[in-house]
Amino acid sequence: MVKILELHRALVKLLVVWSLICLVAFSTVEARVRHYRWNVNYEYKSPDCFQKLVITINGGTPGPTILAQQGDTIVVELKNSLLTENIAIHWHGIRQIGTPWSDGTEGVTQCPILPGDTFKYKFVVDRAGTFMYHGHYGMQRAAGLYGSIIVSLPSEASEPFAYDYDRNIILNDWFHKSTYEEATGLSSIPFVWIGEPQSLLINGRGRYNCSLLANPSLEACNVTNPECSPHVVTVIPGKTYRLRIGSLTALSALSFQIEGHNFTVVEADGHYVEPFVTKNLFIYSGETYSILVKANQDPSRNYWMTTNVVGREPKTPTGLAILNYYPTHFRKSPATVQTTGPFWNDTAPRVAQSLAIKALQSSIHTPPLTSDRTIVLLNTQNKIDGYFRWSLNNVSFSVPHTPYLIALKEKLNLNNVFDQKPPPENYDFKNYDIYSVAKNTNATSSNGLYRLKFNSTVDVVLQNANTMTANNSETHPWHLHGHDFWVLGYGTGKFDVTKDVAKYNLVNPIMKNTVPIHPYGWTALRFQADNPGVWAFHCHIESHFYMGMGVVFESGVEKVGKLPSSIMGCGETKGFHRP
Amino acid sequence: MVKILELHRALVKLLVVWSLICLVAFSTVEARVRHYRWNVNYEYKSPDCFQKLVITINGGTPGPTILAQQGDTIVVELKNSLLTENIAIHWHGIRQIGTPWSDGTEGVTQCPILPGDTFKYKFVVDRAGTFMYHGHYGMQRAAGLYGSIIVSLPSEASEPFAYDYDRNIILNDWFHKSTYEEATGLSSIPFVWIGEPQSLLINGRGRYNCSLLANPSLEACNVTNPECSPHVVTVIPGKTYRLRIGSLTALSALSFQIEGHNFTVVEADGHYVEPFVTKNLFIYSGETYSILVKANQDPSRNYWMTTNVVGREPKTPTGLAILNYYPTHFRKSPATVQTTGPFWNDTAPRVAQSLAIKALQSSIHTPPLTSDRTIVLLNTQNKIDGYFRWSLNNVSFSVPHTPYLIALKEKLNLNNVFDQKPPPENYDFKNYDIYSVAKNTNATSSNGLYRLKFNSTVDVVLQNANTMTANNSETHPWHLHGHDFWVLGYGTGKFDVTKDVAKYNLVNPIMKNTVPIHPYGWTALRFQADNPGVWAFHCHIESHFYMGMGVVFESGVEKVGKLPSSIMGCGETKGFHRP
Repeated sequence: MVKILELHRALVKLLVVWSLICLVAFSTVEARVRHYRWNVNYEYKSPDCFQKLVITINGGTPGPTILAQQGDTIVVELKNSLLTENIAIHWHGIRQIGTPWSDGTEGVTQCPILPGDTFKYKFVVDRAGTFMYHGHYGMQRAAGLYGSIIVSLPSEASEPFAYDYDRNIILNDWFHKSTYEEATGLSSIPFVWIGEPQSLLINGRGRYNCSLLANPSLEACNVTNPECSPHVVTVIPGKTYRLRIGSLTALSALSFQIEGHNFTVVEADGHYVEPFVTKNLFIYSGETYSILVKANQDPSRNYWMTTNVVGREPKTPTGLAILNYYPTHFRKSPATVQTTGPFWNDTAPRVAQSLAIKALQSSIHTPPLTSDRTIVLLNTQNKIDGYFRWSLNNVSFSVPHTPYLIALKEKLNLNNVFDQKPPPENYDFKNYDIYSVAKNTNATSSNGLYRLKFNSTVDVVLQNANTMTANNSETHPWHLHGHDFWVLGYGTGKFDVTKDVAKYNLVNPIMKNTVPIHPYGWTALRFQADNPGVWAFHCHIESHFYMGMGVVFESGVEKVGKLPSSIMGCGETKGFHRP
Repeated sequence: MVKILELHRALVKLLVVWSLICLVAFSTVEARVRHYRWNVNYEYKSPDCFQKLVITINGGTPGPTILAQQGDTIVVELKNSLLTENIAIHWHGIRQIGTPWSDGTEGVTQCPILPGDTFKYKFVVDRAGTFMYHGHYGMQRAAGLYGSIIVSLPSEASEPFAYDYDRNIILNDWFHKSTYEEATGLSSIPFVWIGEPQSLLINGRGRYNCSLLANPSLEACNVTNPECSPHVVTVIPGKTYRLRIGSLTALSALSFQIEGHNFTVVEADGHYVEPFVTKNLFIYSGETYSILVKANQDPSRNYWMTTNVVGREPKTPTGLAILNYYPTHFRKSPATVQTTGPFWNDTAPRVAQSLAIKALQSSIHTPPLTSDRTIVLLNTQNKIDGYFRWSLNNVSFSVPHTPYLIALKEKLNLNNVFDQKPPPENYDFKNYDIYSVAKNTNATSSNGLYRLKFNSTVDVVLQNANTMTANNSETHPWHLHGHDFWVLGYGTGKFDVTKDVAKYNLVNPIMKNTVPIHPYGWTALRFQADNPGVWAFHCHIESHFYMGMGVVFESGVEKVGKLPSSIMGCGETKGFHRP
């Protein structure tokens, strides 16, 4: 008996010590610096059951999820273990305030990271929310180089909505051809188009119908491969889940559904949304949303989570994941017919969702009521010397091989780096018919940039138009680096600088970093050029940016701190030495 | 009539002017600097009728042939237009006397050339002969990045053999998988082997049997594609042709034949050979030969030129080109059964050819009669941490990410660059059984190098052994950068440092830059370390070097001239600035 008491006392002591250890450990979790060591490599993977070479981080695609708290410093030491290929990683949605050299945009903010090199990205996650990271060099994002960044609120703060658990989901489309093959096709005469994706991935898992192949075993396509078993979100009946959903598709606009469940949209790109209930979430590449879903359905079965292509005629099967009700077995497939999304070519509900997304009443950041400068960007498909391109105001962007940030900050000979003529601020509004194929589809190429007065307020109007195919206008998701912008309005047809400006939402516009323009429509944004650096603004469709659909903004580069020498080594910065 | 006379006079004048232009142009051809502008890109090509992505130079693979005269300076301005991939090009057989930074060996003599960069290679071709160039970074040679260098004698000199015309042929083996796939497989556990080549190419043209594919049209495999029509050498009956034959296979040892014709071997790696007549030329990757063939057969038909895999069980069809007798139509296929080469597993004739190749009596460069140092390199297949590797004396080479040449010449902190411990000079001669799988197949990895006393005479004995497969020993072609070596002897079994040295051929050894070791055999070389720089010496099988089958020699690096800054920018040379 005495012995039992002694044992009990010893156990209590142990428990106290353990609690102290946990407290210390917890403080460590709360610490300000989160250090990651990543190794980037090529590996054979079967995300959709079809085996192919993918770019992995620490053996996986998607890569590790970065979990942090607002105000933390993230350090990622990235080892490039590819054989002959450089890399760069962009931290999508992180503004990089004070660290513009960590934005990870090859040719804009850094030289690429060479094979064998270890590069240190270091930046503060200054705002809670749902973010992502991905390759920003060539088309490496589409080769598998991507993942999630989840930033939680400071310990003392609380979200303006209630939920029990937090889960994150990243959507992607997946192609069996390599990004080399895709890029070569895009740069060929005749143009070779990779076609629609073979599958849609939810958290890196999809399902390709291997029997479509002439010889599935030769191709190492195997639907029983555990790498392509569907992603499972297990829920406890009665609980509410915050699903953080991001899209990093190379091409596709998506809708997302949960069979038998409505859900409430509460966050977009790290900003609170005035909640609204829906059955379909439309999500464009580069966007993130949080939705709240209550596990309030029959718990004796599971439910499909589905994602579909919208905006392009879908030739890709629905992407599937499983909402698993505890204690139902997670591999029990839902017996019901899969939920189908809205019609792919019905633009109206997508425009309606865009219009529905407003800032949460209690957390509105009021925009400046006027702007200092308006840049109108006509989005067109063009040809240059017979090659297909995308252009803004008939100028197609080409990435320079000396990063702007270094060239401008270090006052290199700019004539050697980029075109000194800034790109146009507008198009021929009067005469251009956005509903027809342009009379002259030729464009010019440039890597000139827009220099914005520091702290000025800038409006950008994205104007959609017909592509080079009659009766066709595509959806483009535009992503701004280094800033969030207010979404002041969406409209159909040609933006009218007087009438439409008067209708801008200056009361409760949402702030975002990525926004779509809808077919034949326009989208108006406003942002404050208050982040010293050089920042890309581009269509987030991988092939469109590759084909020139982007611009670059510089602002306050003279206020940028000392650049790390690690970002140098290419183009005019080779052997560069600060005197 | 007068008019006709006037016309005649005008024509005569024109002819005179034209002759003068030609004379000037001819002088230009004779000029000392030959300037090339090359653009390196990925393109879809069908060298063996199967379409795949290849690396091209100015749109072709093989790339342009460099034609020069002894003493000329070659300038190649190389623009890297790949999307995310660096490059480096080695000028195989050119010693780079005074320009070791132009040797093009990534990690040894230069940093890789980044996408968007233009790099200038500049070097003198100091010796007439048949040479080659190829990618020397990752496995880019096997992706199509290669070509020929033909250096003719000075105008006043003449060859020690007679011929009417000069033609060159470059042999290669061809794989349908990408070099990324191959490299990833080699670095995987379990090891994934790419298998035997799908075809053999003669001047970039082969013939894959598309009907072996499940769906040839889906794969864009088309035997009528003109890109894969066989290479044709047209000959005039009675004339003698010098065929310059080089091999840049990734894997295969080859034999080469011309149906119905004997030929005379007269040159090897830029050195004259005491002529001998044969029906089969054995050629290993990295070697070049000149053969003389007389067009003395029935001129009413054509003849196959054939190449076959030897030394490995061939699973690749014979490579074919056409010897076309003028005026027979060049597309008239020889009706006869194709010439077949010797048995693939008959080593004896291959060893016999190696032994037959001696320096031409009238052009012997006598070797030093003794050497200052002997390095014995035991060639073995090994494992490190479960990965397959190739090793020398149980040390497997890994390429550093800061080039040795820069680190040593610029006196960087060498500890950060490569292992300071030099690799071993010998193996456990007494106890090692070269005829069995090693008792302990584990090896270690290193990027240490051998530092050779400047101007010293160095012997290298390459000792072959059993691989990790019982009763298997492979052929390895060894290539030395920056020097030619004397081939002092070949033997079977374990090299004996006293008995075998006594049998060295010090009378008329051929000089070469590439030499095979035969299965279970040894090969002894001697060279003078008289070229200041850092030089790779490695197995020329692309995958073997990738897996560690190489060493590096440094000699007289302090005598190297000022390094161009263009070779820097990677590893420890990033932002390096000469004080």
